[in-house]
Amino acid sequence: MQEKIYISLSEIERFSKIMLLHIGIDEKSADIVTNALVNANKRGVDSHGLLKLPGYLKRYQDMKWSKPEVIMDEGALGMVDGNNYIGFVNATIGMKMAIRKARNFGIGMVGVRNSGHYGMASHYSMMATEEQMIGWSFTNSAPLMAPWGGKRAMVGLNPWSYSVPYKKDFPIVLDISNSVVAQGKILMASVKGTSIPLGWAMDKNGNQTTDPNVALDGLLCPLGEYKGYGISAIIDILCGVLTGSHYLNDVQLSSGPNPGTGHIFGAIDISRFGSINEFQARLEDFVYRLKHTQKQPNVEEILVPGELEYKVSLSRIKEGVPIPTKLKKNLDEYALKFSEQPLQPI
Amino acid sequence: MQEKIYISLSEIERFSKIMLLHIGIDEKSADIVTNALVNANKRGVDSHGLLKLPGYLKRYQDMKWSKPEVIMDEGALGMVDGNNYIGFVNATIGMKMAIRKARNFGIGMVGVRNSGHYGMASHYSMMATEEQMIGWSFTNSAPLMAPWGGKRAMVGLNPWSYSVPYKKDFPIVLDISNSVVAQGKILMASVKGTSIPLGWAMDKNGNQTTDPNVALDGLLCPLGEYKGYGISAIIDILCGVLTGSHYLNDVQLSSGPNPGTGHIFGAIDISRFGSINEFQARLEDFVYRLKHTQKQPNVEEILVPGELEYKVSLSRIKEGVPIPTKLKKNLDEYALKFSEQPLQPI
Repeated sequence: MQEKIYISLSEIERFSKIMLLHIGIDEKSADIVTNALVNANKRGVDSHGLLKLPGYLKRYQDMKWSKPEVIMDEGALGMVDGNNYIGFVNATIGMKMAIRKARNFGIGMVGVRNSGHYGMASHYSMMATEEQMIGWSFTNSAPLMAPWGGKRAMVGLNPWSYSVPYKKDFPIVLDISNSVVAQGKILMASVKGTSIPLGWAMDKNGNQTTDPNVALDGLLCPLGEYKGYGISAIIDILCGVLTGSHYLNDVQLSSGPNPGTGHIFGAIDISRFGSINEFQARLEDFVYRLKHTQKQPNVEEILVPGELEYKVSLSRIKEGVPIPTKLKKNLDEYALKFSEQPLQPI
Repeated sequence: MQEKIYISLSEIERFSKIMLLHIGIDEKSADIVTNALVNANKRGVDSHGLLKLPGYLKRYQDMKWSKPEVIMDEGALGMVDGNNYIGFVNATIGMKMAIRKARNFGIGMVGVRNSGHYGMASHYSMMATEEQMIGWSFTNSAPLMAPWGGKRAMVGLNPWSYSVPYKKDFPIVLDISNSVVAQGKILMASVKGTSIPLGWAMDKNGNQTTDPNVALDGLLCPLGEYKGYGISAIIDILCGVLTGSHYLNDVQLSSGPNPGTGHIFGAIDISRFGSINEFQARLEDFVYRLKHTQKQPNVEEILVPGELEYKVSLSRIKEGVPIPTKLKKNLDEYALKFSEQPLQPI
């Protein structure tokens, strides 16, 4: 196993922000991207954390800047054209607008088009929970799955998230994508040289495979067969077709010049349905009953959605975030280039 | 195999309505229930069609009637208290209110509490498509799954649906529940005396089983392991916790006296995002590209969500609905009891 170095969340924050400033990102945008990276690392979603910073530093410095703009603002709906600006920034504008709409109309929904990679879907849905609202966040993404019965990548994993305010710093969070497993798991098997279970992936001709390298060149299997395909299709209709953004295999990898990603954000004001206290009491009962369900043998604890990530966050606040030495070295080069202090391990 | 008799959709409509009137349902409600049954049979979802009529006739005649009422109407949100009236009627009121809200505010969402079985989830989301809107429809239901790691039924399959207007009588429809398979498939294996694949169901101690009879006494496996559990939990928070209805294992079977089912309905006005024609052109391209994806061997055609049901509807309009002789006999007894003409086969 690769050696890991532990970096505190505040150190990741310092480093990410200063690097983004060095490549010419404005301070507000640098804060937004940094907050999203730190939040992902805090919750153990390292695939959307510091690991992505080198890629962003490369991508954002090559971009022609134009700012996202609100192009529709009618009643409880809004639309933001990202104009190919940073996905995190476009998405944050969209989610905040949805929250404002929900405060005025009880519910709000905002579409974002011509955006890019926005990180962890739940980063945005969780923004609603801080306002005692239920939030949702959907995005399309570059194709990795075939339509059910097909053998060409046409549909993205199209992650989606709902978050519900529960306890302080502990929202109930669903954050899933529509394949059986994340591509990261197949990548890991490839690195370790192990095989993958049947049902995870297909080769490029649509045949099931247990070889992770063949799988990386092929297709991911949709969650629950035609169901995962169907969910991804609906999310693409909302995020891509409805917003006027790219859809299906027109959505590009976020490292490309014009990913054309589309997002949908929504928020629901709980207080319109009754008192927040009553909702909280009911939700506590809901969680209590799930957690106290009789367990299967060898199961230590039943978790509610988002609880695992909450538990990880408690340890990461204390112990920092483990990062691979290879990533540290890569980031040290950026520190050297910009004459800044490299990431300091705990 | 059991013999089948073919009944036309209009004959199902005649028979269902007249039977409901005989047990004292008002005409408007009888129409609503009948439309939902006919729509399910038309789309091939026979588990929610005429098959359910005997149960409804039994349940509805024993009920104390009180009418559903709108208890909250604020901005783009609404809430209906079903007061334990017919689920179909409560749900129709809710969905229509969501559509009205969407016309005024661009998006609308309505919760329904103290309701009952509402049939096919997509029956309601499809109402939005007739108004050139995208609709959604979620419901909680009596528990059939354990939380992930548990071994007691606490969570319903909690069906959910999104519908998008596409072509006349052919909306794009996602309508799924959150188990690997429907209980009906296990019931069918039990009737046929065949075993079921591992991964479909568990015995009542949470062990995987291939015996359909053990499974019927046990638990269904959630779609995609923890993901299906998570989706069902979020839907229950929306439909049960937020609306003030029952949730988790308090939700009763619809045959019980007070199921306490909760629903959530929503609608989005597409025209606020741009012209409907432009949306339709983009959606046609979306569908075309999916359907023309290179196919796996032995796959005849790639379908978009809801296309299978659309194709079935074309044949059912022509050829009628096959119903089991046993169901026909059961319904003939009702005809005799109320001195009405029995169901006439085609």
